[in-house]
Amino acid sequence: MSTDSPIDATRPIALRAVRGFHVGGRPVDLVDLPHRQLATVPGLQPRVSNPNGRYQVGQLYVQQFALAAPTARYPLLMWHGGGMTGATWECTPDGRPGWHDYFMRKGYDTFVSDAVERGRASWAPACLVSEMPEHRTLEQAWDIFRFGPPEGYGAANGKRQAFQGQRFPVHALDQLAKQFVARWTSTGGMALDAYVELIRRVGPCTILAHSEGGRLAQHAALSVPELVKGLILVEPAGAPSTAVEDASRLRGIPHCVLWGDYIPQNSLWTIYRRQVDEWLAAVQHAGAEVTEFDLPAKGIRGNSHLPMMDDNNWLIANLIHEWISGAMEGGMSG
Amino acid sequence: MSTDSPIDATRPIALRAVRGFHVGGRPVDLVDLPHRQLATVPGLQPRVSNPNGRYQVGQLYVQQFALAAPTARYPLLMWHGGGMTGATWECTPDGRPGWHDYFMRKGYDTFVSDAVERGRASWAPACLVSEMPEHRTLEQAWDIFRFGPPEGYGAANGKRQAFQGQRFPVHALDQLAKQFVARWTSTGGMALDAYVELIRRVGPCTILAHSEGGRLAQHAALSVPELVKGLILVEPAGAPSTAVEDASRLRGIPHCVLWGDYIPQNSLWTIYRRQVDEWLAAVQHAGAEVTEFDLPAKGIRGNSHLPMMDDNNWLIANLIHEWISGAMEGGMSG
Repeated sequence: MSTDSPIDATRPIALRAVRGFHVGGRPVDLVDLPHRQLATVPGLQPRVSNPNGRYQVGQLYVQQFALAAPTARYPLLMWHGGGMTGATWECTPDGRPGWHDYFMRKGYDTFVSDAVERGRASWAPACLVSEMPEHRTLEQAWDIFRFGPPEGYGAANGKRQAFQGQRFPVHALDQLAKQFVARWTSTGGMALDAYVELIRRVGPCTILAHSEGGRLAQHAALSVPELVKGLILVEPAGAPSTAVEDASRLRGIPHCVLWGDYIPQNSLWTIYRRQVDEWLAAVQHAGAEVTEFDLPAKGIRGNSHLPMMDDNNWLIANLIHEWISGAMEGGMSG
Repeated sequence: MSTDSPIDATRPIALRAVRGFHVGGRPVDLVDLPHRQLATVPGLQPRVSNPNGRYQVGQLYVQQFALAAPTARYPLLMWHGGGMTGATWECTPDGRPGWHDYFMRKGYDTFVSDAVERGRASWAPACLVSEMPEHRTLEQAWDIFRFGPPEGYGAANGKRQAFQGQRFPVHALDQLAKQFVARWTSTGGMALDAYVELIRRVGPCTILAHSEGGRLAQHAALSVPELVKGLILVEPAGAPSTAVEDASRLRGIPHCVLWGDYIPQNSLWTIYRRQVDEWLAAVQHAGAEVTEFDLPAKGIRGNSHLPMMDDNNWLIANLIHEWISGAMEGGMSG
């Protein structure tokens, strides 16, 4: 565990309540599908399963942790990345406390969500979607999360060869993979609708969003800019296009974008970052305050695409907290 | 909300930590599957998705709420029913606090899990399983959860006709359906393995299990009877068979089984209950203390298959807490 932990993790967290619930979604009725026999209890006859009827689709799941005495001005919405769930923010794969723990202890009311079709949000029967979902392999993660070069994954002696200085606990790769959930990649519009409804439900808020969640957070903010008091984009996987969207709608929202290491080594992230740079330049030009934490440029080397799990995760969380306290809340501190 | 709430819900809950993590599972490697093109980011070229590689399958997800000052002797493992997740125990569909809130406030350390292939536990790519999962429709739930007679679901005037005295908030049926997740019905062995590993990880514990979770809890206890200090079966969907398993292995475990109303009206539950009765008679004959809460026989009428969501949910939770404090812990109270 990082020794530069800026908070006292031995003090209890006092909560008014923990609430889990679903937001958004709509009913869909299926008709005229064949029945089938289904065995559910060993020793009993199979039962008939009739798939026709009403389902709910398009909702997201959110778990609210309401502090007894919050000190941050706005609650923090924590949005995970593609193929993952709210578990992203909990323990790291090697068992250290994650960012959710950090931000609760720093005085933030939190809302940790599972996006539409992920985790506890649930997903619609296969017949409702036009595609099979993607499941991320560890090999894909190795590349997309920038743990190491492709040849490092299957290194000859069986020991993975990560990038030099890698801060992600690659020895816990199998534990990370247990977090991966199926993802449908063409239903982002449905996810976006539910996120916007979540913001409306919560009211004025700060959004801390990772990867795909970072892209969706920017789009969601375009729908309800008056409710988004700060956008923290951790390694966002893309951004709105200035050719399609009006960046000036976000001029009142302080933005913070955070990038880890090894981006030049990865063509996909080089493209994503260019897209984000272009959009944020337009947002800044329109008048928004935009802060970039380019970690390697600040001398903090070795962070992967998952800084909330890296060995300096609390140091990075602290950067974000200080940005919120300073740029966003004008010196207000938790 | 029930007015007979036996605890003060305005007092903060003091937690040492909230920890979410995965337990169990194993790596599986897929080979020789075709690649495909996949669009993930609007405005960018599709990328190639290669499904070959390593996945983790068979893990469960658990969220630990560690109290600053627990008063219950053993932590409480909360296991949901079929086609659902740990969200079962959180807010009720009409927004009241659920049993998780109740038991934390009563002094129990809790571990709320999502079973293998449900919710944040994730599920394996379709090619790893031999069947398509089942998604529960609202029509199925209406019957299986004993909300009302079949003709009551599609009542002519559009207003559902539940059983007389029904305590489940049927006006919030759509919200309930948002909790439903896909279920594979032939991989119970994998779920059982992960549950047993969870018990080993936690150590001596009490298990509070609903429906399918109740059946699995009894099987899991057969593997590690020395660690299970109490079994609370809420409307268990079946039990081990005395023809296959040795009930005397559970002779040291106090059992509590709880049944709601309207069971004679439902043939499936009549069968399940007979199976459970037979098993528990054998467990009791072997020397275990077995308590049955037959709610209608106690004069508590109107409970559905989901008593943790019914309008008297805290009263029912209190029955369970008092059983734990009395039968199980010899008068120790939270």
